[in-house]
Amino acid sequence: MKTLWVAEPIDYDGLQIHSLWAYRRFGLQGDSIVAFQGGCEIPFSNMVDLEDVRAKSRIASPLMLHFIVEHFDLDLQKAVLRQRLLAAIVRDELGSKVRRDGDDLFLSRGKLSISIATLTPVSAKIHFGINIQRATDVGVPTSALADLGVKPVPFARRILGRYAAEEAGVQDARTRVRGVP
Amino acid sequence: MKTLWVAEPIDYDGLQIHSLWAYRRFGLQGDSIVAFQGGCEIPFSNMVDLEDVRAKSRIASPLMLHFIVEHFDLDLQKAVLRQRLLAAIVRDELGSKVRRDGDDLFLSRGKLSISIATLTPVSAKIHFGINIQRATDVGVPTSALADLGVKPVPFARRILGRYAAEEAGVQDARTRVRGVP
Amino acid sequence: MKTLWVAEPIDYDGLQIHSLWAYRRFGLQGDSIVAFQGGCEIPFSNMVDLEDVRAKSRIASPLMLHFIVEHFDLDLQKAVLRQRLLAAIVRDELGSKVRRDGDDLFLSRGKLSISIATLTPVSAKIHFGINIQRATDVGVPTSALADLGVKPVPFARRILGRYAAEEAGVQDARTRVRGVP
Amino acid sequence: MKTLWVAEPIDYDGLQIHSLWAYRRFGLQGDSIVAFQGGCEIPFSNMVDLEDVRAKSRIASPLMLHFIVEHFDLDLQKAVLRQRLLAAIVRDELGSKVRRDGDDLFLSRGKLSISIATLTPVSAKIHFGINIQRATDVGVPTSALADLGVKPVPFARRILGRYAAEEAGVQDARTRVRGVP
Amino acid sequence: MKTLWVAEPIDYDGLQIHSLWAYRRFGLQGDSIVAFQGGCEIPFSNMVDLEDVRAKSRIASPLMLHFIVEHFDLDLQKAVLRQRLLAAIVRDELGSKVRRDGDDLFLSRGKLSISIATLTPVSAKIHFGINIQRATDVGVPTSALADLGVKPVPFARRILGRYAAEEAGVQDARTRVRGVP
Amino acid sequence: MKTLWVAEPIDYDGLQIHSLWAYRRFGLQGDSIVAFQGGCEIPFSNMVDLEDVRAKSRIASPLMLHFIVEHFDLDLQKAVLRQRLLAAIVRDELGSKVRRDGDDLFLSRGKLSISIATLTPVSAKIHFGINIQRATDVGVPTSALADLGVKPVPFARRILGRYAAEEAGVQDARTRVRGVP
Repeated sequence: MKTLWVAEPIDYDGLQIHSLWAYRRFGLQGDSIVAFQGGCEIPFSNMVDLEDVRAKSRIASPLMLHFIVEHFDLDLQKAVLRQRLLAAIVRDELGSKVRRDGDDLFLSRGKLSISIATLTPVSAKIHFGINIQRATDVGVPTSALADLGVKPVPFARRILGRYAAEEAGVQDARTRVRGVP
Repeated sequence: MKTLWVAEPIDYDGLQIHSLWAYRRFGLQGDSIVAFQGGCEIPFSNMVDLEDVRAKSRIASPLMLHFIVEHFDLDLQKAVLRQRLLAAIVRDELGSKVRRDGDDLFLSRGKLSISIATLTPVSAKIHFGINIQRATDVGVPTSALADLGVKPVPFARRILGRYAAEEAGVQDARTRVRGVP
Repeated sequence: MKTLWVAEPIDYDGLQIHSLWAYRRFGLQGDSIVAFQGGCEIPFSNMVDLEDVRAKSRIASPLMLHFIVEHFDLDLQKAVLRQRLLAAIVRDELGSKVRRDGDDLFLSRGKLSISIATLTPVSAKIHFGINIQRATDVGVPTSALADLGVKPVPFARRILGRYAAEEAGVQDARTRVRGVP
Repeated sequence: MKTLWVAEPIDYDGLQIHSLWAYRRFGLQGDSIVAFQGGCEIPFSNMVDLEDVRAKSRIASPLMLHFIVEHFDLDLQKAVLRQRLLAAIVRDELGSKVRRDGDDLFLSRGKLSISIATLTPVSAKIHFGINIQRATDVGVPTSALADLGVKPVPFARRILGRYAAEEAGVQDARTRVRGVP
Repeated sequence: MKTLWVAEPIDYDGLQIHSLWAYRRFGLQGDSIVAFQGGCEIPFSNMVDLEDVRAKSRIASPLMLHFIVEHFDLDLQKAVLRQRLLAAIVRDELGSKVRRDGDDLFLSRGKLSISIATLTPVSAKIHFGINIQRATDVGVPTSALADLGVKPVPFARRILGRYAAEEAGVQDARTRVRGVP
Repeated sequence: MKTLWVAEPIDYDGLQIHSLWAYRRFGLQGDSIVAFQGGCEIPFSNMVDLEDVRAKSRIASPLMLHFIVEHFDLDLQKAVLRQRLLAAIVRDELGSKVRRDGDDLFLSRGKLSISIATLTPVSAKIHFGINIQRATDVGVPTSALADLGVKPVPFARRILGRYAAEEAGVQDARTRVRGVP
């Protein structure tokens, strides 16, 4: 799959998980993971997780490292499995102070990340956002890469590489076993 | 999904990843993860990973902690994604000295685990084995839970619980998002 | 799967088969069957069966017992098979005076029920509505639970239980057979 | 789908649910339902339901009406849904003295039928057998079409027709609805 | 699958690949291929291929022979494979002066056809349009059936027949092979 | 996908369409198309097309150009669509004297090719064999590349390249369209 680091800042408002965003915006076609920095403020009408809609949550952050993943199949369960693997990879790179619970990462009691996986009419999409600076006024304590002294850009590049390698490894594992009775 | 810790030792010889093993042996029906201790020696004719067959690898260990997972769908890619998540969970529980590379775990240079995911005619199966004692004569340096001072039984129970919780979380995430354009 | 009897009346207007309705309205997450009483009047723009759209049918009833089913897969053929099973269960409970033809139930010449199955972007949905009182001005003779002396509430509870049991039985049957050549 | 009544008696021994049996034996190609009369005695090695294997059940009958169904997809859950629909159709034709519990039919306390659904490498298969005469020595009380005064041949023809009509109706319902949000 | 030649001219504007168009307009239900003549002018907002959107292409022709195909499954890769087969059939009928490159046909340097395959919420759709007269002002050289002396109507009927026969042949091939290890 | 021309002759006996043959024999992993020359004689027990089994056909040729394709999905219908596309590509390269009928190629009245597509437990496989020399004693008139003056090796290389390009084109087309209502 393709990887792309976008140097220019982009604010995440929920439209980036629509289908073919990477192709429309960057001409990046096929399965891909794109990373960029920017604020995060998701209008109510763009919210995808109905738990947030029901709870009238505010999803926002002054500055995040964002990952947008697109896989061209229509299996939401598979997309969620991939989202969990991405969370596990991020946690791995951040070290043992960070704890993963499903698709959420925590640093001590502070929520470090937000994530969603959903379907478009032609693909599955994942958004994974990690606070670079702590968010306030979001109803929960937050933490940030700054608390860990992690520099976003080289960190993002490592995640892009590892996610693509993981996916290649999955494909490798899928194509060298025989069936069993 | 169901979890089961089997107190009696069982040597893994490759037959345990055949379909419905948990049901045949323990009456455990449906998606499940079973753990037990025992040796590991896989006869050539039972090998599933054709890379091992081609390399004429010996796959063996004097004592391992084994996990056998069965999911009743026929998607091998999904099974491999789940296998990677299981590896990530195990690595998480073992701490940051352990490194995950795909479905393999390493402690410094020693290979700590073996794993395979494949299809049966009615399900997908995963075997994940972790050395309790180091294996010799297997062509690569190995490491073991003993090197980490980890006691297999309570460790196994934590893994069973976390894998089942992860799967429940995946199902939860799959059933609360709306689609996007 | 989860079952829910909703005591408050709800008029069915076609929006209840949109995705995640049970979660939005009742916090009921995952595969579910919900039952309630209420009128039925489906505006033209909400009609899903294009046969009705082409025929400019009026779909309406003064009082119906409604069932709303959601399964989180994207297989419309499977949804239709489940719709037929639900119709068969309802017919079974109503006794041999009622005749099932596909997803329609008839009492002598009167149409007793309406039903539709379709896909949302993330799930499959079924609506099954049974006249509690006869409908008029709908272009066909109708019949109702009142004609059979059936009380809607205990009847609805039996259907909820049987549909959930059927689904559990399907899952049971799917997870205990080996493949054949 | 195609239907076939086979006049010559055939004893069911479990090989008839192997893939492409109708094609091998009768040249009947594609999705099909075949009916015939004959004894039933399934050797242990041909048993498909591992519950029977575990319980060391004897599955036998002196004379049964057998239905063999093949659908060329690889979805076992869908096959089980179709198996239940077939059971519902049979129960419908036999009248209200017969009770359906999943894929089993009962006449008062006597088990009237046996059934299994499973996968082959290229298709899904269903066997549905109804006692024409009561079976003995099978560990459970049984009942038979003879108890109901039902003549097997015309009855079989009605079931063949109704199952094929049901399947055509499912296809019809699947191809005339639009999606919903 | 069903075939239909529509004698009345219809201008293609991109709405004809929406779901169930053949059913809404002609009452033609199920998998189908429909052919008609008419102009082609696709407004920007109806464009489906984002490569065209990105390139701000004009897609237009004064007179085309149009084929609209609908298959009721949700597999876009399969739809593209069928689109290529349709292109291969058309090329076959037009003879060896015509060259196929993916889903595009060329006569010497002139583009003879346009095509798209995509998903609706309930089906997969293909549009395949062949210039009857050359198009101008579309940014590329074009060619037309007129250049080959091919009469559209009998040609369209042959394509309808061959595509339906191909699909029947695919189904035939799918239902007479056993699996291999 | 990967392509491989094998210079050494290999006689086709039906074992080459078993799963992972290219990986076992050449270390070629993942979706692939392999070509080689060799005789063809398929023992009865290796026949996959039950039409041949039923007709007790002899499938043999003194010298063929063989193509073995493997795709790691479990969709037989898709495999047959790809088999037809491969046949269309071969026909395209051989020119307009050759006629394609489904997966069969003919030169005047002589059968030029044989082909089969089937499933393994982990993949779909296609065999496509083209006579280099005419076969006799096979019950039908045959033709051969020799009749067309086509040299097998450069021809095979063109087919390998075109099939891989077609597959890449399919993937490209699948990943740049938006859905429609």
